[in-house]
Amino acid sequence: MASLMNPRGLLLIGDGLGDRPCPELEGQTPLEAANTPTLDRLAREGECGMMDPIAPGIRGGSDTGHLSILGYDPFQYYTGRGPFEAMGIGLDVRGGDLSFRCNFSTVDDSLVVRDRRAGRITEGTAALAAALDGMQIEEVTCRFKESVAHRAALVLRGPGLGASVTDVDPHAEGVPVPEARALDPNDAASAKTARIVNQFVRRSYEILKDHPVNQARRAAGLPPANIVLPRGVGLTPHLAPFDRQHGLKSACIVEVGLVKGIGRYLEMDVIDVPGATAGLDTDTEAIGRAVIAAFADHNFILCNVKGPDVGGHDRNAAGKLAIIEKIDTMVAQIFAAGDEGLTFAFTGDHTTPVTVGDHTGEPCPILFWSAGVRPDPCTSFGERAVIGGGVGRIRGRDILPIMTSYMGVQEKYGA
Amino acid sequence: MASLMNPRGLLLIGDGLGDRPCPELEGQTPLEAANTPTLDRLAREGECGMMDPIAPGIRGGSDTGHLSILGYDPFQYYTGRGPFEAMGIGLDVRGGDLSFRCNFSTVDDSLVVRDRRAGRITEGTAALAAALDGMQIEEVTCRFKESVAHRAALVLRGPGLGASVTDVDPHAEGVPVPEARALDPNDAASAKTARIVNQFVRRSYEILKDHPVNQARRAAGLPPANIVLPRGVGLTPHLAPFDRQHGLKSACIVEVGLVKGIGRYLEMDVIDVPGATAGLDTDTEAIGRAVIAAFADHNFILCNVKGPDVGGHDRNAAGKLAIIEKIDTMVAQIFAAGDEGLTFAFTGDHTTPVTVGDHTGEPCPILFWSAGVRPDPCTSFGERAVIGGGVGRIRGRDILPIMTSYMGVQEKYGA
Repeated sequence: MASLMNPRGLLLIGDGLGDRPCPELEGQTPLEAANTPTLDRLAREGECGMMDPIAPGIRGGSDTGHLSILGYDPFQYYTGRGPFEAMGIGLDVRGGDLSFRCNFSTVDDSLVVRDRRAGRITEGTAALAAALDGMQIEEVTCRFKESVAHRAALVLRGPGLGASVTDVDPHAEGVPVPEARALDPNDAASAKTARIVNQFVRRSYEILKDHPVNQARRAAGLPPANIVLPRGVGLTPHLAPFDRQHGLKSACIVEVGLVKGIGRYLEMDVIDVPGATAGLDTDTEAIGRAVIAAFADHNFILCNVKGPDVGGHDRNAAGKLAIIEKIDTMVAQIFAAGDEGLTFAFTGDHTTPVTVGDHTGEPCPILFWSAGVRPDPCTSFGERAVIGGGVGRIRGRDILPIMTSYMGVQEKYGA
Repeated sequence: MASLMNPRGLLLIGDGLGDRPCPELEGQTPLEAANTPTLDRLAREGECGMMDPIAPGIRGGSDTGHLSILGYDPFQYYTGRGPFEAMGIGLDVRGGDLSFRCNFSTVDDSLVVRDRRAGRITEGTAALAAALDGMQIEEVTCRFKESVAHRAALVLRGPGLGASVTDVDPHAEGVPVPEARALDPNDAASAKTARIVNQFVRRSYEILKDHPVNQARRAAGLPPANIVLPRGVGLTPHLAPFDRQHGLKSACIVEVGLVKGIGRYLEMDVIDVPGATAGLDTDTEAIGRAVIAAFADHNFILCNVKGPDVGGHDRNAAGKLAIIEKIDTMVAQIFAAGDEGLTFAFTGDHTTPVTVGDHTGEPCPILFWSAGVRPDPCTSFGERAVIGGGVGRIRGRDILPIMTSYMGVQEKYGA
């Protein structure tokens, strides 16, 4: 087929972009109320519609939403938060690894849980985690890393591990630390996992109880973070690398750890941008420059700006509107650097209404802009402006095929 | 997440609601021609679109349509009419049971079938069925119950039964009653089923041939219902209870046995309404009162009004239009009792065009009304009025996720 000169794809995600009518915006959504001249122009020149990141009505997360949008069915591949949280905080996670979400907790000398969150510890967890990371138990390597506050992740890598084990975290206080056990007593692989986990927990107590960080906490009257309690085991799915899956050379310019972790796991080039704060104050101009620069040696970029989701969670309509306007300016900046060969899509990974403060299941609006699109009647970009657009109602997993078709880089399926 | 005060969901199904242009309505459908001020108001305030109960073009039934709408993929779970008919006439059916559709039939002394429908017997079948119900054969319990006219259902419960057996009903007259046999001679479980079924059929003849009901029939010159001929075996699927599947506390207020049976099987509270006739003369006001009352201790109600399907099957455009207007009045009655926290959806389980007199595969119009919806440009409710609505084109299985998202009761899928 005829190829574009220098075909390039940019999939821009406004995290939590979708919204519902806001009373403070006279019944408009933040996206509808925002002044977005560039997105509106692209909507006029391009093709728009509605996109369910996972499926209609499903209240997804950023992990399940991005998996789906990147072409990996979460109903098949999403095995729980453990693996994705571990990826998100930068642990090296591979297919087949077992991952656990963990808390630093406080136990007394009888190993009774006194505080599941160790006083919501905020400092010193990196040093505590470093004291546990790399532990070898039998032939299993335990990778361990701190996350935000009392949270951490544990990854087990080794032969013959099963994923059907109970939590060590009792999800309650005043009770003894339970042992992990295999759900099925005849499941030798999961029994092995339980044995390793129980030993990791015991050793975490031995190593942490008199750690200098905890000596200091005791001296300050704070509960020591003297044990690690794993929960929510997940078997890391085997996912084909993104570039192999779609025939691309991709970069991932995103703000949040969870999505960075997915990009890293899919072997995309994850590019960090100084000034990208994942907040409403983020430097979208710096993100725009990073996108333009990354096209020098990539032909596909996933870019996620976190701010709209922050505005939604904070019930901050004005803040969500303002970050959407900053994104519009960033899109103008990127197009100004040259749109020759560019295929552009803009949408959200889920809906985070300001009136709700959490994710909901409505579709996000989506626009496709490329030299090849059939412009439709849509004249602006918004949740309702795209109704009746040429795209109709699609799903997250449809986006990459649509983009790679416009880019002219998709293998023909058939003869 | 923020919850609505007292979130409640009402999914109202006009059975066979969808239709095609009717010459006697000047090319309008009954729904389009009906005067439906309340549905039109809800369409203006809500969000509309097209809904394929199963998939585009599929001519579904009320069983497959409701399964799909309630969130159970019929392509995965629908194993034939047997189990659903048995549920529908009130037999206790459990996952793993084998169910058969049966006829009361007439055979001569040589067991040659003389009348497959026993003269379309209408009276006395309850007594005949009672004489067979509860039969024990080997360690299998045979539950048997009459349905309408010559129809009945047989349910086998016991260990080691296979579902791959041929019909006993020869689907012809003047031929001997055949024996059920396993489709695969090496399939011991199905061979066992065949053995049980054949013994049930033989015993049915022995028990029924001189039953008083048949003595009276012979005296009246009517063919005796002296044998039961099973056909259409189906293995009852294991379905998660509706409330567990969706996180709801539900009631089922429906008029037809088939749908009641599904509700009962899904462990919904099935509420019978005096005056609900499943005909055009049904007491929709009583149904409306039952819905309002049921919200006292349920947060989700499936309500089905059968009349539109009756009008379609009877090729009665005026009748279908009139029952739709009664439904509109019932919706007004329900909303007048309070719409605080209500999420409402109205659609059909399939299309039954007056011009066809049977089910066809077109989508049904659907409307969603809730505090959170993004009102779209639709200003009335009808097959064509919803084209271009914000819902686009969805499927039956999408309805519950959309409703539970609006209700604010859906678990988040991901982080």
